[in-house]
Amino acid sequence: MSAAPLRLTDIVRDIEAGRTTPQAVLAATNERIDAGDGALGVFTHRAPETSRAEAAAAKGPLAGVPFGAKDVFDSFDMPTEHGSAIYRGHQPAADAPVIALARAQGAAIVGKTATTEFASLDPTPTRNPHNPDHTPGGSSSGSAAGVAAGYLAGACGTQTGGSVIRPASFCGVAGYKPSFRLFPTVGVKTYSWSLDTVGFFAATVPDVALLAALISGRPLADTPPADASGLTIGLYRSAVDDLLEPDMAAAWDTAARAIEAAGAKLIEIAEPASLSAAREIHAPLQNFEAAQALFHERTRHRALMGPKVLEQLDHGASVTPEEYDDARRTARIGRKAATTLFENADALLVPSAIGAAPYSLGSTGDAMFNKLWTITGNPCVNVPGLHAANGLPVGLTIVTRFGRDARALAIAAMLEQRLAVD
Amino acid sequence: MSAAPLRLTDIVRDIEAGRTTPQAVLAATNERIDAGDGALGVFTHRAPETSRAEAAAAKGPLAGVPFGAKDVFDSFDMPTEHGSAIYRGHQPAADAPVIALARAQGAAIVGKTATTEFASLDPTPTRNPHNPDHTPGGSSSGSAAGVAAGYLAGACGTQTGGSVIRPASFCGVAGYKPSFRLFPTVGVKTYSWSLDTVGFFAATVPDVALLAALISGRPLADTPPADASGLTIGLYRSAVDDLLEPDMAAAWDTAARAIEAAGAKLIEIAEPASLSAAREIHAPLQNFEAAQALFHERTRHRALMGPKVLEQLDHGASVTPEEYDDARRTARIGRKAATTLFENADALLVPSAIGAAPYSLGSTGDAMFNKLWTITGNPCVNVPGLHAANGLPVGLTIVTRFGRDARALAIAAMLEQRLAVD
Repeated sequence: MSAAPLRLTDIVRDIEAGRTTPQAVLAATNERIDAGDGALGVFTHRAPETSRAEAAAAKGPLAGVPFGAKDVFDSFDMPTEHGSAIYRGHQPAADAPVIALARAQGAAIVGKTATTEFASLDPTPTRNPHNPDHTPGGSSSGSAAGVAAGYLAGACGTQTGGSVIRPASFCGVAGYKPSFRLFPTVGVKTYSWSLDTVGFFAATVPDVALLAALISGRPLADTPPADASGLTIGLYRSAVDDLLEPDMAAAWDTAARAIEAAGAKLIEIAEPASLSAAREIHAPLQNFEAAQALFHERTRHRALMGPKVLEQLDHGASVTPEEYDDARRTARIGRKAATTLFENADALLVPSAIGAAPYSLGSTGDAMFNKLWTITGNPCVNVPGLHAANGLPVGLTIVTRFGRDARALAIAAMLEQRLAVD
Repeated sequence: MSAAPLRLTDIVRDIEAGRTTPQAVLAATNERIDAGDGALGVFTHRAPETSRAEAAAAKGPLAGVPFGAKDVFDSFDMPTEHGSAIYRGHQPAADAPVIALARAQGAAIVGKTATTEFASLDPTPTRNPHNPDHTPGGSSSGSAAGVAAGYLAGACGTQTGGSVIRPASFCGVAGYKPSFRLFPTVGVKTYSWSLDTVGFFAATVPDVALLAALISGRPLADTPPADASGLTIGLYRSAVDDLLEPDMAAAWDTAARAIEAAGAKLIEIAEPASLSAAREIHAPLQNFEAAQALFHERTRHRALMGPKVLEQLDHGASVTPEEYDDARRTARIGRKAATTLFENADALLVPSAIGAAPYSLGSTGDAMFNKLWTITGNPCVNVPGLHAANGLPVGLTIVTRFGRDARALAIAAMLEQRLAVD
């Protein structure tokens, strides 16, 4: 089911050069989706005719770029169902800013992409394009799978635990979780306001960098360094590394050797206790807020909710304000500690998940290797290009200091290139 | 048009003691609103029959408490129009958490209260219950006026500049702007995610403290100190004090003398340059975010928007990411500086506005004395009880260290009591 992914930078270049037109790219993309998505389950809704016509006529640097929006982002022209039976057919009045900003750059929102229920853990029926019996990861399941399937040249998602980086790793695409609050979460269904982070997917790192640069108006698409000379990269050894599967451990090593061969100095960084502690308070922090954010749904529509999200919300309702305040304090200390990691390192190289996408669609996998960086708010970029023994993709994450998003994207692009060469 | 305000603590006590019933309180309140609100303009929508029946049967400590929700809070049973023609009749699917949490404590949401357009500056037709030719302030115009008119025993609002404290001061009621993010802004129309703060109104400080304590499950309704002995109160002299009208300057002095007579030590605090600087970046910070938050509305429904909000959004669209980042940096430095103010003072006493409510409904007044504390996120409580020469209320604000909300409310309650005695 996996097809050649759509390279956003190629589309932009080809349209600019007159080698193709937005209309042609979008028509071909919609045909491909029509033919294949019944089996894959990327989309919950497709753009109506009026929006297709508007998109085909759109101007701007992203004109002709087929873009998918996770179905927790409000869209004025398609329902927004949050993966929940409670919101079946729910039609927002306005676009979430990230969608509106993408459209203003010319992007075509070709559809809303499948999300786990409220971007929590109850899975979608979406399949992994690399093997339909494996999960694409979650919660941004449709966005990651849609890019991997060649349906989308760009997509947005959200990460509250590991919902951008993990599905990107499982689907073998580039995923970018920006510094906390770099992109507005306005018009996005809230799960945890301290953690929810808007992120992006594209085929490769330069594609996702250009996408984010154009949506934000920020210089995020720097030319990546030709090599890694002068860079110090930290191999961050965390308290949960014993969970790593051999495939991921091997990929981590391969990537480290590639970056070293490119001229970087590698250093070992042992996880400080304050950061292990921060990872551990993810659940009370997230769930206390989720129980408030979804108070109406949990108390009035409980029968329509899935078991996994209810388990998190019920836990959250049992967390006291004092426990929550303690968790916030631990997170704040963790954020400060994360900054000190970059005193001696330009970036960290860490696994994007425990291993490759697990077999079965019953679970979207584990966020253990992502949630610390969601708490600290550091920019993360999943670098695709390596594979497990069973052929499924495994990704590595480049992490940089808070606010150094352009550097994370540039170093990740350099690593991606090196892995492709090897 | 001003009536005896409804004391929330009295209602709770009287119902608990069996002296009245929720049904009786709510019936009397609805009759009062039916009779008077045509002239006053507090409400944009009133609760439908099904919700009235549910509220009359509700259990919980706030049963029988008539509560108003500013019309930027989503409500599942009434339209939520954000004061905007774009959202005429717009019906959300779920309650904003603050409304849901209030209902869960038994509160009756008797109506949605008038808000300036998108909680910005284009005024509502709401009148000040103390003099119908004067503004009630904004943007939480209906919530403040509804409490002052005796229609509501509690209400919620939002403050992005001065939209809780200023209308509370103009209407002579207690207003509480909590520490930033103490209450969720989920389900509340975003204007500026760095600034938007949920706040509350009630007749007196103990009323608003009890309301906030019950909604949050936090110990915010401490018994206020009998006097001010042992307390050090800072008279914070800011860079904008020359804007103060004589009535407010006199009220500030009266409140300072009252608190000194109660045993407090008064100290003078001169505004640090970093806090004057923080006040000055309010506009680029707010407007850059507002231009993103309302991107869809501004670009697709411009003709339906008011001139004042458009002026802010157009300004915001011209702020560059670099200027915005500079503003965020200045705000962060200001937040740290604000903490140091409390090394020698338990609380600050500052004016709640330039003066009393200005004549005319064409403007909701000026947020100059509030916006610094919105940026820093410190808890603020408007203390009512003093009046200008023309008889209109003027309020003073108690400010405490970030997170010390219970202390702000307790000191404010003590001051309120002293002012009532004088």
